Amino acid sequence: MSEIEPARLPEPPYYAVIFTSVRTNGDNGYAQRAEEMLRLAAKQPGFPGGYGGGQPPCREGGVDSTRGAEGLGITVSYWRDEESIKAWRAQADHTRARAAGRAHWYASYELHVARVERSYGFTR
Amino acid sequence: MSEIEPARLPEPPYYAVIFTSVRTNGDNGYAQRAEEMLRLAAKQPGFPGGYGGGQPPCREGGVDSTRGAEGLGITVSYWRDEESIKAWRAQADHTRARAAGRAHWYASYELHVARVERSYGFTR
Repeated sequence: MSEIEPARLPEPPYYAVIFTSVRTNGDNGYAQRAEEMLRLAAKQPGFPGGYGGGQPPCREGGVDSTRGAEGLGITVSYWRDEESIKAWRAQADHTRARAAGRAHWYASYELHVARVERSYGFTR
Repeated sequence: MSEIEPARLPEPPYYAVIFTSVRTNGDNGYAQRAEEMLRLAAKQPGFPGGYGGGQPPCREGGVDSTRGAEGLGITVSYWRDEESIKAWRAQADHTRARAAGRAHWYASYELHVARVERSYGFTR
């Protein structure tokens, strides 16, 4: 499975938004909207690496995202700075998608905004 | 799937260690060692919420962990401060497990150490 490539990231410090969630039952329009949000996020200033256009789960550009069979999803998006995160939070389509998330898609979620102070990687 | 409960966390600031990985093929002793590492981490100072003893994937105490069918795993462990992270990094069993990870279990991984500055949640 080593064809999955890691997110391409700048040198620290940068920011990570950790979003952990449990879905409601059924799709309810989630999959299409999730892909739209990734495409839109990749157009925002301060979102490193772009986005290749795959469906989540994915691991590319400025996002690592996966969901296990038990139902827990973790998406980590990476941003250049806090201002970039705030601008994405204010983006109108994203604001509507978050409202739909609370109304339809998520049983629960938590979001952590964090400043990455160091990072390293390993590739076989 | 709403029986899955979120990680129980203190008020920010706290630290998050984001570990994204792609496994090699086969178990090679990974599952047992991963559970041992969670049990040991929960005994470390500065690991909030304890650990109930389930196999990963899990979402409890100081850790959110999942792996999707495509092979990408994301584990986020939460810590009170940087000193707690450094102490866990120096723990002897954990040091040996990391070496085994590079030798056997992981095709690739990245690790990001980040200071959580704000967080919030939603429950239906």
